[in-house]
Amino acid sequence: MPDPLRLGIAGLGTVGRGVVKIVQRHADLIAARGGRPVEITAVSARNRAADRGVDLSAYAWEADPVALARRPDVDIFVELMGGAEGPARAATEAAIAAGKDVVTANKALLAHHGQRLAEEAEARGRVIRFEAAVAGGIPVIKALTEGLAGNQITRVMGVMNGTCNYILTRMESAGLPYAQVFAEAQGLGYVEADPTLDVGGIDAGHKLSLLAAIAFGTRVSFDAVDLEGIDRVSIEDIRQAADMGLRIKLLGVAQMTGRGLEQRMSPCLVPADSPLGQLPGGTNMVVLEGDSVGQIVLRGAGAGEGPTASAVMADVIDIARGTRLSTFGRPAASLVAPVAAKASAPAAHYLRMTLQDKPGALAKIATVLGEAGVSIDRMRQYGHDDATAPVLIVTHKTTRDAIDHALAGFAATGVMVGQPVALRIEPV
Amino acid sequence: MPDPLRLGIAGLGTVGRGVVKIVQRHADLIAARGGRPVEITAVSARNRAADRGVDLSAYAWEADPVALARRPDVDIFVELMGGAEGPARAATEAAIAAGKDVVTANKALLAHHGQRLAEEAEARGRVIRFEAAVAGGIPVIKALTEGLAGNQITRVMGVMNGTCNYILTRMESAGLPYAQVFAEAQGLGYVEADPTLDVGGIDAGHKLSLLAAIAFGTRVSFDAVDLEGIDRVSIEDIRQAADMGLRIKLLGVAQMTGRGLEQRMSPCLVPADSPLGQLPGGTNMVVLEGDSVGQIVLRGAGAGEGPTASAVMADVIDIARGTRLSTFGRPAASLVAPVAAKASAPAAHYLRMTLQDKPGALAKIATVLGEAGVSIDRMRQYGHDDATAPVLIVTHKTTRDAIDHALAGFAATGVMVGQPVALRIEPV
Repeated sequence: MPDPLRLGIAGLGTVGRGVVKIVQRHADLIAARGGRPVEITAVSARNRAADRGVDLSAYAWEADPVALARRPDVDIFVELMGGAEGPARAATEAAIAAGKDVVTANKALLAHHGQRLAEEAEARGRVIRFEAAVAGGIPVIKALTEGLAGNQITRVMGVMNGTCNYILTRMESAGLPYAQVFAEAQGLGYVEADPTLDVGGIDAGHKLSLLAAIAFGTRVSFDAVDLEGIDRVSIEDIRQAADMGLRIKLLGVAQMTGRGLEQRMSPCLVPADSPLGQLPGGTNMVVLEGDSVGQIVLRGAGAGEGPTASAVMADVIDIARGTRLSTFGRPAASLVAPVAAKASAPAAHYLRMTLQDKPGALAKIATVLGEAGVSIDRMRQYGHDDATAPVLIVTHKTTRDAIDHALAGFAATGVMVGQPVALRIEPV
Repeated sequence: MPDPLRLGIAGLGTVGRGVVKIVQRHADLIAARGGRPVEITAVSARNRAADRGVDLSAYAWEADPVALARRPDVDIFVELMGGAEGPARAATEAAIAAGKDVVTANKALLAHHGQRLAEEAEARGRVIRFEAAVAGGIPVIKALTEGLAGNQITRVMGVMNGTCNYILTRMESAGLPYAQVFAEAQGLGYVEADPTLDVGGIDAGHKLSLLAAIAFGTRVSFDAVDLEGIDRVSIEDIRQAADMGLRIKLLGVAQMTGRGLEQRMSPCLVPADSPLGQLPGGTNMVVLEGDSVGQIVLRGAGAGEGPTASAVMADVIDIARGTRLSTFGRPAASLVAPVAAKASAPAAHYLRMTLQDKPGALAKIATVLGEAGVSIDRMRQYGHDDATAPVLIVTHKTTRDAIDHALAGFAATGVMVGQPVALRIEPV
């Protein structure tokens, strides 16, 4: 039997604990599959005294993750602390400088510094693997980087934040407004300390930017992701969408358009009976589309101890097997800076607005749409019990630019009450 | 740039043509991702004169696939002929003996001879890759072998024959009997020359046996797959199932039970609103369950030129990247012969039978079930216009042994008209 592969684990929260459990429970299975034993030599976390329900006594303890990353008895630095800066970044840089392979669950770190880290690792012949950073236990990085490597990728879509999907699903099923369900989710511990990471779409946007880099051979460009959170999704829109057989999801979409790379993370409407529309609660789903393979749908748990640790161990066992890939599927130095194309791919849109209930109001709206080049598929004015007229419009395929043009025009009509809502209907 | 990786392709049907197209169309993309150019040096097929719509003039032609497999200018023998014996087997053996890597879409060959081929390849340091052999373009071999390598796999399920899924879906949507839809599918060219490969569950059974070997570290045991085709599925059962929110699928299930490895390919009932239940027409779905990851669902095109060629190219690019795995995810010599456990895992069952319409008939049936240890969840006697009484029963969880015991008992009651139907309700 060859020498063991030695892990140094930084971060012993939910995921770190899960990795320790798998290494301890499945030593034989891992050695059989990986071709060599995998063992933990050292660990690091903020609080040594915490009871984590796992026996850490056989491992060296390092208070400083940077020191852990440099230990000569560590082959793979396993980074499970999180955060784009601070100890996670310092320790990952130290690990690469010290010639270690890196396995990480840290989407924020890679979304912000992935390009440079990958270049440095590849210059030293080291790998950075991050299956656990995107969609938890779903092997989506592997499916995209390896399983679909023969395809020109045409589009990547995903529901990749379980908290948001939980909130939207619960709003619909319980008929409750956003604020109430958000408070509920916070009470259940589902929401990050900084809620905008979840409900602002930042966490899911980090993940999308990593998928886009692999899919299109472009440098990770998180800053170019068009981000819109779920905090303005109303129960009224959820109800109206349901009436039309649609459902609102916080959907990430990356696609190469004629104008460049479009990356969006925003509330979108999808058919309620599509795989994305059917996705319940905290589950994740990623849809990969390629010119040969067509559409591949992957579904599973997007977070949690077991699923995320499973993804970490897949990367570890790949390294044990001798699989050595470029971080983003081709040499980092060859990745090109993408031209960011915001809102370029056309789609049908859902518009909901409230008009003053007076003659000619609807005609003014229709005229503005026509002038903006937006053609109407369906329009409905529905029941109301005051002097206002709620109006729903579904457009034919059009660009977001045209929609924004129309929205600006609406304001000038003098017949609008409040702000109109505009949601993209993503073709799936 | 390193030396090109040279392919010899045997078989230029749908899939072979698709592979040629990808290599020609995406040469730069493949070289960027694989780290070296991939080129075709030689091809082989039965009919040289056929117009395949691709330019083969740059490749050497070999009438004999065995000669192709031995060519010194071939690094990977790509076997796309099919068939468990004959030229496919001879050429694959020759390729391995000549020290070539093998990429194949041939499920029958591996289901019957995979163990020996894998041992011989591994003894020579060669790899056999077969992503295209199971579920077309879905990267399920990769997901199971690599993506879930840190898991003890608890169950593998799949709808892996698009023809059967098409027939069952169409029977339900059009309300047509099996024979008529089967004839339709034959007319559309959806059915293999030997229809039992499809509708008898053999093709899907081959695939299941390969997944089971990877999942459980057991030798491929196709002979131990409990096979039942779809040819006895009646429109009546499809209707009754739909009434209960269930749908009939030809479902493969492999799981390790207390009594050994259970492998079944049979018509099963699943909830109509589950991912498996929702699966339309010719699409494939594989469900992988592991102790850490929970449930992962993969969906995509299970056949066709593009999807299957995509899977072939994933294997080729893996080899270009230097990824070298044991055929079944651990050394073939270490795979153990499984104890075959037929029908061991308990489940609820659906029973439909017709009774003579006379006093005490139902009581006799209920008594037989009780004596067999089968407890009833729901029972319904429904409308009839002659002297018979159709009866539907859904049992609580029980074993197939107990169900078979009850079926034998029914025959002795003297109140049965015709044969009862018994279908497993697979918990998903």
